[in-house]
Amino acid sequence: MEYKFSDRVSNLKPSAIREIFKYAADPAVISLSAGNPSPDAFPAKEIAEISARVLAENPISVLQYSVTEGYTPLRNHLKEYMKKNHDTGNENDDILITTGAQQIMDLCTKALVNEGEVVICEAPSFIGSLNTFRSYNAKLVGVTVESDGMNMDELEEKLKQNPNAKLIYTIPNFQNPSGVTMSLAKRKKLYTLAKQYGVLILEDNPYGDLRYSGEYLPTIKSMDTDGIVIYAGSFSKVISPGMRVAYTIAPKPIFQKLVVCKQGNDVHTNIWSQVVCDEFITKYDFNAHLDKLRAIYTKKASFCMELLDRYCAPAITYNRIDGGLFIWCDLPQDVDMPAFCKEAVLNKVCVVPGNAFLTDETEECHSFRINFSTPTDEQLEKGIKILGDLANK
Amino acid sequence: MEYKFSDRVSNLKPSAIREIFKYAADPAVISLSAGNPSPDAFPAKEIAEISARVLAENPISVLQYSVTEGYTPLRNHLKEYMKKNHDTGNENDDILITTGAQQIMDLCTKALVNEGEVVICEAPSFIGSLNTFRSYNAKLVGVTVESDGMNMDELEEKLKQNPNAKLIYTIPNFQNPSGVTMSLAKRKKLYTLAKQYGVLILEDNPYGDLRYSGEYLPTIKSMDTDGIVIYAGSFSKVISPGMRVAYTIAPKPIFQKLVVCKQGNDVHTNIWSQVVCDEFITKYDFNAHLDKLRAIYTKKASFCMELLDRYCAPAITYNRIDGGLFIWCDLPQDVDMPAFCKEAVLNKVCVVPGNAFLTDETEECHSFRINFSTPTDEQLEKGIKILGDLANK
Repeated sequence: MEYKFSDRVSNLKPSAIREIFKYAADPAVISLSAGNPSPDAFPAKEIAEISARVLAENPISVLQYSVTEGYTPLRNHLKEYMKKNHDTGNENDDILITTGAQQIMDLCTKALVNEGEVVICEAPSFIGSLNTFRSYNAKLVGVTVESDGMNMDELEEKLKQNPNAKLIYTIPNFQNPSGVTMSLAKRKKLYTLAKQYGVLILEDNPYGDLRYSGEYLPTIKSMDTDGIVIYAGSFSKVISPGMRVAYTIAPKPIFQKLVVCKQGNDVHTNIWSQVVCDEFITKYDFNAHLDKLRAIYTKKASFCMELLDRYCAPAITYNRIDGGLFIWCDLPQDVDMPAFCKEAVLNKVCVVPGNAFLTDETEECHSFRINFSTPTDEQLEKGIKILGDLANK
Repeated sequence: MEYKFSDRVSNLKPSAIREIFKYAADPAVISLSAGNPSPDAFPAKEIAEISARVLAENPISVLQYSVTEGYTPLRNHLKEYMKKNHDTGNENDDILITTGAQQIMDLCTKALVNEGEVVICEAPSFIGSLNTFRSYNAKLVGVTVESDGMNMDELEEKLKQNPNAKLIYTIPNFQNPSGVTMSLAKRKKLYTLAKQYGVLILEDNPYGDLRYSGEYLPTIKSMDTDGIVIYAGSFSKVISPGMRVAYTIAPKPIFQKLVVCKQGNDVHTNIWSQVVCDEFITKYDFNAHLDKLRAIYTKKASFCMELLDRYCAPAITYNRIDGGLFIWCDLPQDVDMPAFCKEAVLNKVCVVPGNAFLTDETEECHSFRINFSTPTDEQLEKGIKILGDLANK
């Protein structure tokens, strides 16, 4: 049998990161290529307590079918929490619980973007989201990320050139992979441009709570008086990614369409894990837990940057980060980056080649991404020393 | 802001069943409209035991990110189990764990069906799957379900008329909603026709283990020497729907494409629940558990048919069932079925109007679906008596 796949997926390939994970699976290889929370960061004891309690008291409530919109108490608590803590969401919005934030990208593309229509993305951007957009045959148009976020002149030009743009996808805080945070001025400008050109903003904020220095900036959604921003939040980086619980705050007409799409996608998100997340954020000290995570990662991030300074200068430069899990490293213009990454793997260190994060993977790129949350301090030191030795050779 | 949704979803509506659930949510209404497992059917104690154990012994393994294909031990155990017990799956197939079987329909449509291409469905068929096909702008073509499965002459005609048919969707065992089981002869004929016309079969088997009388029939997938059958299995009806764990056995090239699509959809299925399902089917007596479920439902199904005979004859006729969770009831041709269902709700009994399950909901239909697994025996008796009184009036 010769299989004929749909046009939308016939050119889809497994993500480059997945291929790299094959090397990273070798226990002799130090992986700086993942994006997993640190093993110290999981509230495992509390999850075990909550789970034991709900399974003893009302097992059917967490094992039976549930509603597509999500567990009502969790939705209500998140609405309150996001309003109170981040001024995010208003009376024209509603909240949908999803199976990880990846599903938000899927549902939004499905509901809003026809094949051939444009999604404007940061260049570089999160490869998982780019692949989701691609899986609906959307056309990706990249806008250069500067040290304070997207280049706004370039964004406006791309908006002019692409009247069939439907979404602007942005990760404003500690962007994956660049580590960049969008300035307040650019957030406002982005909102204004989106409004002016009638394009929706998809604001992806998985790392927002993981700030290690500097001041918190308002979400773009907090400026949304016109119903043009879809906000994506997630418990993956702050409770557990294995549970796959995330949420989107969206204008009600969009929310309703996302609910219908989700119904056809997976009916509802694992209700057991939804209840566990709800109990964790309401009956335990969630803010103290976030403080603990920030303490863990602040230490790891500083250590990682210290190592980069010590071992990698001057050949490797990088943007200092204020939060998140990733650091974007630049090689000199005359260095062949893919060859460097291959050489690194042969020397038992795995990083992600920067071109994997571009809307066009074949573009020339001299950067790579490293992650500091997953490796131990010993692995981090050993791995970064190897990278520095290679780069300075 | 006026929102412009994609062509594929702009005509999608919430499923008719969901609308009916709004009435069913009234505690005064007896719901015969659901499809939930009986509250007695959950292995809650065992799930609590397993969960406590894995969270104590290796919490990170169930809380961290996992791989898209699914938990490797579960995949291997399911491969063995399906081969040994159902001769289903061979060396040209692979197995993918999904977030409920609904996701299998989503991934298969995404990977295989372009907008405007045809999915051939049983008429009537499971509304959830129909809506998923619709959400990709697939064209649905229905084939009449007889008491032994699809009308095969009609199927062949539809295959001839629709050279752009990509999938034949069937629920061969205790079909939802008709309760019908496809005969062995028709399974063979279906396979032959699919092969002859170069169309893939999507075999959905959520109720296969819930047979209460008669002989087990081989799966269509067990005949698959040509790599043309995608099999969908699920733990929703035999362990817990709230956990959203299902699996598809598909020819390897299709499997690979489904994996890429799932990666963009939700990265992976809740790993905690995957581990719980794996431990339950391997470290506990899964067959004894299935026997227990069959005992519960055999009793409930017999009781329900007894009640239909007692209270509803002669106005309501129905097909006796050998398994599954649903009974398809027919009203006389001169009765206005939607009016009857509305009248039933006003009398505090909720059933699902049969046209909800048709590829064209506006077609005339004189049937409705009832479920016997969710209501208590008291509710069942009271509800069916009301239906009988109404119908015989």
